[in-house]
Amino acid sequence: MAKVTAVSPFAPRSLARLEPLAGVRFATAEAGIRYKGRTDLMIAVMDEGSTAAGVLTKSKTASAPVLWCRKALKKGKARILVVNSGNANAFTGKKGTDAVELTAEHACAAVSCKPHEIYLASTGVIGEPMDAGKFAHLLEGLAGKAQADGFEAAARAIMTTDTYPKLATRTAMIGNVKVTINGFCKGAGMIAPDMATMLCFIFTDAALSSKVLQDLLNEHVETTFNCMTVDGDTSTSDTCLLFATGSAAERGQKSIDDAKSKKLSAFSAALHDLMEDLAIQVAKDGEGLSKFVTFEIAGAKSWEAARKIALSCANSPILKTAIAGQDPNWGRVVMAVGKAGEAANRDKLTIWFGPHCVARNGERAKEYDEKTVAAYMKNAEIVIRADVGVGKSSARVWTCDLTHGYVSINADYRS
Amino acid sequence: MAKVTAVSPFAPRSLARLEPLAGVRFATAEAGIRYKGRTDLMIAVMDEGSTAAGVLTKSKTASAPVLWCRKALKKGKARILVVNSGNANAFTGKKGTDAVELTAEHACAAVSCKPHEIYLASTGVIGEPMDAGKFAHLLEGLAGKAQADGFEAAARAIMTTDTYPKLATRTAMIGNVKVTINGFCKGAGMIAPDMATMLCFIFTDAALSSKVLQDLLNEHVETTFNCMTVDGDTSTSDTCLLFATGSAAERGQKSIDDAKSKKLSAFSAALHDLMEDLAIQVAKDGEGLSKFVTFEIAGAKSWEAARKIALSCANSPILKTAIAGQDPNWGRVVMAVGKAGEAANRDKLTIWFGPHCVARNGERAKEYDEKTVAAYMKNAEIVIRADVGVGKSSARVWTCDLTHGYVSINADYRS
Repeated sequence: MAKVTAVSPFAPRSLARLEPLAGVRFATAEAGIRYKGRTDLMIAVMDEGSTAAGVLTKSKTASAPVLWCRKALKKGKARILVVNSGNANAFTGKKGTDAVELTAEHACAAVSCKPHEIYLASTGVIGEPMDAGKFAHLLEGLAGKAQADGFEAAARAIMTTDTYPKLATRTAMIGNVKVTINGFCKGAGMIAPDMATMLCFIFTDAALSSKVLQDLLNEHVETTFNCMTVDGDTSTSDTCLLFATGSAAERGQKSIDDAKSKKLSAFSAALHDLMEDLAIQVAKDGEGLSKFVTFEIAGAKSWEAARKIALSCANSPILKTAIAGQDPNWGRVVMAVGKAGEAANRDKLTIWFGPHCVARNGERAKEYDEKTVAAYMKNAEIVIRADVGVGKSSARVWTCDLTHGYVSINADYRS
Repeated sequence: MAKVTAVSPFAPRSLARLEPLAGVRFATAEAGIRYKGRTDLMIAVMDEGSTAAGVLTKSKTASAPVLWCRKALKKGKARILVVNSGNANAFTGKKGTDAVELTAEHACAAVSCKPHEIYLASTGVIGEPMDAGKFAHLLEGLAGKAQADGFEAAARAIMTTDTYPKLATRTAMIGNVKVTINGFCKGAGMIAPDMATMLCFIFTDAALSSKVLQDLLNEHVETTFNCMTVDGDTSTSDTCLLFATGSAAERGQKSIDDAKSKKLSAFSAALHDLMEDLAIQVAKDGEGLSKFVTFEIAGAKSWEAARKIALSCANSPILKTAIAGQDPNWGRVVMAVGKAGEAANRDKLTIWFGPHCVARNGERAKEYDEKTVAAYMKNAEIVIRADVGVGKSSARVWTCDLTHGYVSINADYRS
């Protein structure tokens, strides 16, 4: 089988330019954990007083760094983030815990902080013991040379099978003060080889308590990263962390304690927008994809039900391969709606491929024209909508098609 | 992409020979519903007094014939079964109901029975209105020439993308009377093109009430057909029907009213064995497969939990492609166990590929040798076992790998 090496056809023509953000500095290194000739270690050093929130994988076989973060998040404070690629330090038993502890020890020394102010993430091969000795000693030196202008380099250091770094930036007003949100993430779908998959790190200079950050993150992760799938597989390492350095307080931004406060609405919207941007960038780098696909489900009983039906479509191998084949096989949408287990009225079900209604009220639409819809399927970006006819809720999910490229990447990864 | 036309490498060298069974007769025809030059219509005519039970798809977009059967099953009596391939009569609105009614009308006339003694199933393209006028008029003639020796011809008439007909036979003693169970099914995985997927029809000459049949079917379908998957997609048409002609009563078999009766234990075991045989035949004809794969999960909290974890493995695209690539990527088993959502103890998790322990108590096994396990992965039949370390229950699921062949079949089906 041919190796797939091409860059995703959806790689951005130019990367987002993330300006420095007061209170956080970055450094990267080539630690040689697995890759040669590229960076595989990054740190972010944050000023004292920085706050943190996070959402972590629900996997029952979560990695050692995930367990570390889960504990650290209880205090909601942050001084340093250490991320390596090349090894996920997942399913590594006591050795995994030892590696995490050794890394934390050096991180502690590097910025003179407490253990609960340290956040760790690892991405790469699973099940292989990680030798933290390869890089832990580098942390002090890295902290010394950390620079504010380092987002893109940091984003590159955490890549695994990603074909491009994923970056996004937004600004918003809190009261009269302009604040910035910068984020980057990695992931070639929910799954990169060996499961060390989606990592996302977002930084803002806003002054916000960890509780506010957590509430905002919980809310927005549902409609962004949790509405994106490549193959429906859940990683042992999924980590999304949101940090606030609070430097905007120096410019007069007053701290806000309630995530629902109207004063935060612009910030909340900007954060959502940034997370959606990053989620779409991940779906657009899905392994082996040839098409970016959006499923929009309307007429469901609840948003949760609509999302579940949309995910049932987005994770259906038989539907995703039909899309790869540019086949307007809408019958497979009927199947995927039916199998989702959520309420749907077969005899009111209406389906559109792009602007074309293909089925209405439980049967093929009268105006259905195979040639027209087949022509639409030649587009690189496909939108499939369905109204399931039982309620007023809707949801949207982003995914990609299932191609020979996906099989090649994942069948031949270690051969 | 190349068309995949080969017969499954797991096709049986010789088909099971199903002897005639008193009380049921078969006939087939070339009705030209979609295919040319092959049979696409079959009927089974049963003697008066025959009983029936069934398990049908849980899809919310079930086909018109499924809705018909659901209603007929309430009375538990059977005289005729009519099955066509080439069109699933699913998502066809009022036209679909009309087609079912026209077929039933002719079936009624053919054997002089009541509507609730008729069972219908359709398999093939979805969403395309089915013209029952093409074959309904044939039913009377077919009923007239139905013959006892017709199982294999019937099994062939219901095939869609199947690469071989699937047949199985067993005998058992009820008291001093030997009874026979003959069954056949179709399905190239859970999904054949356009979703008209698994149909299964089982006949016995035992004298059993419909309630007993239903209890037995409900019990055994869970550990057989519901433990088999190709791609995790659920059809609009799944239908498994069990009929008893009761002719063994003439040879002295006394009717039994309780499925749990000890007198039925041999029959129950034989039925289970036959259904397992057929389920494995379906998995071994999975679209594009190169390997037949069994997942055995032990140490779970309950059988249901064990099956859910096994299905999580069996439906994971990233794990199935690794198997296609003959890669002993056991980290992906860790992932699939973790994402199943059922209790599992990461630090007790133990995994075997065939006879080789690859991970023990939450980390790579000391004796793990990549070359040995890679050599095992070259086998055509792969068994992957995991003990999740939280209980005493186990379950087994059959599936196949995810190959370029699967993508080709499903991407290029209509091109």
